[in-house]
Amino acid sequence: MSQEKEKEFDSVESILSKLPQKEFRQVWRILYGDGTFELELSEKCKKLAAKYKVQLISRTFTNLREEQLRSTRIVRIGLFQQKLPVPPTYSIRKVKVEMYTLATDAIKIAAKGGVNVFCLQQAWNMPYAFCPGEHMAWSDYAERAEDGPSTRILQALAEENKMVIISTILERDENLEDRIWNTAVVIDNHGNYLGKHRRNHIPKIDNPNEPTYFCEGNTDHPVFQTDYGRIGVSICYERHFPLNWLGYALNGAQIVFNPCATIGDQMETLWPIEARNAAIANGYYVCAINRVGTEIYEHEFETDEGVVLHKDSGSFFGSSYIAAPNGTRSPGLSRTKNGLLVCDIDLNMCRQIKDDRGYGAFERSVLYSDVIKEAANSHKSQIITKY
Amino acid sequence: MSQEKEKEFDSVESILSKLPQKEFRQVWRILYGDGTFELELSEKCKKLAAKYKVQLISRTFTNLREEQLRSTRIVRIGLFQQKLPVPPTYSIRKVKVEMYTLATDAIKIAAKGGVNVFCLQQAWNMPYAFCPGEHMAWSDYAERAEDGPSTRILQALAEENKMVIISTILERDENLEDRIWNTAVVIDNHGNYLGKHRRNHIPKIDNPNEPTYFCEGNTDHPVFQTDYGRIGVSICYERHFPLNWLGYALNGAQIVFNPCATIGDQMETLWPIEARNAAIANGYYVCAINRVGTEIYEHEFETDEGVVLHKDSGSFFGSSYIAAPNGTRSPGLSRTKNGLLVCDIDLNMCRQIKDDRGYGAFERSVLYSDVIKEAANSHKSQIITKY
Repeated sequence: MSQEKEKEFDSVESILSKLPQKEFRQVWRILYGDGTFELELSEKCKKLAAKYKVQLISRTFTNLREEQLRSTRIVRIGLFQQKLPVPPTYSIRKVKVEMYTLATDAIKIAAKGGVNVFCLQQAWNMPYAFCPGEHMAWSDYAERAEDGPSTRILQALAEENKMVIISTILERDENLEDRIWNTAVVIDNHGNYLGKHRRNHIPKIDNPNEPTYFCEGNTDHPVFQTDYGRIGVSICYERHFPLNWLGYALNGAQIVFNPCATIGDQMETLWPIEARNAAIANGYYVCAINRVGTEIYEHEFETDEGVVLHKDSGSFFGSSYIAAPNGTRSPGLSRTKNGLLVCDIDLNMCRQIKDDRGYGAFERSVLYSDVIKEAANSHKSQIITKY
Repeated sequence: MSQEKEKEFDSVESILSKLPQKEFRQVWRILYGDGTFELELSEKCKKLAAKYKVQLISRTFTNLREEQLRSTRIVRIGLFQQKLPVPPTYSIRKVKVEMYTLATDAIKIAAKGGVNVFCLQQAWNMPYAFCPGEHMAWSDYAERAEDGPSTRILQALAEENKMVIISTILERDENLEDRIWNTAVVIDNHGNYLGKHRRNHIPKIDNPNEPTYFCEGNTDHPVFQTDYGRIGVSICYERHFPLNWLGYALNGAQIVFNPCATIGDQMETLWPIEARNAAIANGYYVCAINRVGTEIYEHEFETDEGVVLHKDSGSFFGSSYIAAPNGTRSPGLSRTKNGLLVCDIDLNMCRQIKDDRGYGAFERSVLYSDVIKEAANSHKSQIITKY
């Protein structure tokens, strides 16, 4: 229990900031990169964030250089991480109304802060409730991607605030056996439904038992052309797969959002690494969002064999952040509080970094194409042995 | 200049250790992972390290669980990072003798510490001198991989100390147009030459101008079966390419060494990310080594157009470390001093982590195999637009 207590702190950054200033700068340069500075947001934005008790962190990423032939293409990104404000045992209608209110408030704050592209966490309109013992109840959260209630509400907000909005939900496809998918919807800044991506990778583990809810995606790696750049969405567990990140690079992505719901010490250690490495390896910005809080259920989570596990989801550790193609990253939001991260990025860095460093994820691709094609079917490993 | 001064500190870890103990533990858990503890080495080993002024850091990585059907397979790894002990302007013979002495001393320390697999930094027997203005002089460092002087010296040491040794050198292939390659040689613990890997990726930049020295490798991604596990070597710049790391995974690697020579603030920010992410994504241990010190030349480095740049190599920032498949990493060696990192790892973790998390880099490979094959030739991007 004292171990649990010890985990109750706001963020790595809040601890590092206790170091003497010189040491803080030395550590920050290596761990976060010397490439961001404070971004001043309007008083109205800050007041609204304070009113709704939303932590507000804002930074500007500096680009490598000015270009002669292109002007800068600054895009202001907003990432929102949120706690379930009511117990997950409340009715679906009640929970959804609460989550719509939270999201609407966050979008209002973001609008006052001049955000162009806004992204919500994974399954933002529901508890992250994928426990097999209570399977049936939670499937009812699923909606149509194209014109379900969540998409329609966000379309109105997108048009009103001239904001691209990315919404990751549980999708029900009534035209294909009523199947459920974990799906990101992209709405453009005119309020149009632009399209969707269905998550490609689902963990085959007991808890959360996601495969009993939703299918492996069938949309490949779509990239959405918006007024604010080319956008891909890599959903949660997709972040563990370098080839999945590469898919968006091959389709020209400049910003890839990674809305998540993740818990546990081991995952918290991977959290600052994987999305950031994807930005470095693929020459695009990555925006990683994780929810906060602990969701406590009426019934215990159970395995298929009826073994009782626990009543709570574990603690989602927040820490949402943005990483640039040059490896610089923003500070993270809190590990425990609702928060909005607002960052200015320059899309031009995506091309500049490739020209500067000479590497994209696909350099010398012929080296790999045959072996990957072969390995997808059968493959003879190149192991050298004298024995 | 005061900015330069500010960069003179030993390591991120030495600064973090100034935090109050509770905060230090909180930050360490997230940034390094709660999966290593102190490894006690023999007094003889510690005394020898002190005698040769070599920093000694040692850790044990804890595995996930005991297995019923396999006993643990503990391997003790040693990574050595070193400074050029004489000016790079000394004769090739003189520099080589100095570097052989340094390496021999380090192997003696490692042997006293019970090391099974020992790896030297990239181009360990020479200055990292790839400046176009002085091209001719440095090419003479190149040797035969199979039986050149460096390989022969290390074979004797490997046999004597029952140690696998990995040696990355400039290789001259007298049978193929006298071409030069950047090559890793693997010598087994019986002193046998096991084989070589030629670096696949070379940066196309001015300084260091590596492509004027050595060719892009033609050995794919060999993995060497030794008594201490299956070993791959990803040389320096290869670390930036997720597909290159994947190549070793597809050939069953359990430990991939990444001997480097790298400088600069931007690279120092990427250093803790890329090799560690490769360990996570591919389910193997990664051992990243970087040299230390600044190498100052007689003549200025020049571009091909004769523009004078500077006389020094920049400061190699050391910080060698090991990352486990579960994402835990060791502390790094010093940013400035010669050092030996000794770590115990359990090869069994490689399989355990795949069973636990359910992901390898190649999950749902059929999704990617066609697009990568196509993209190697010509490729139509999947961009969704309403415009």
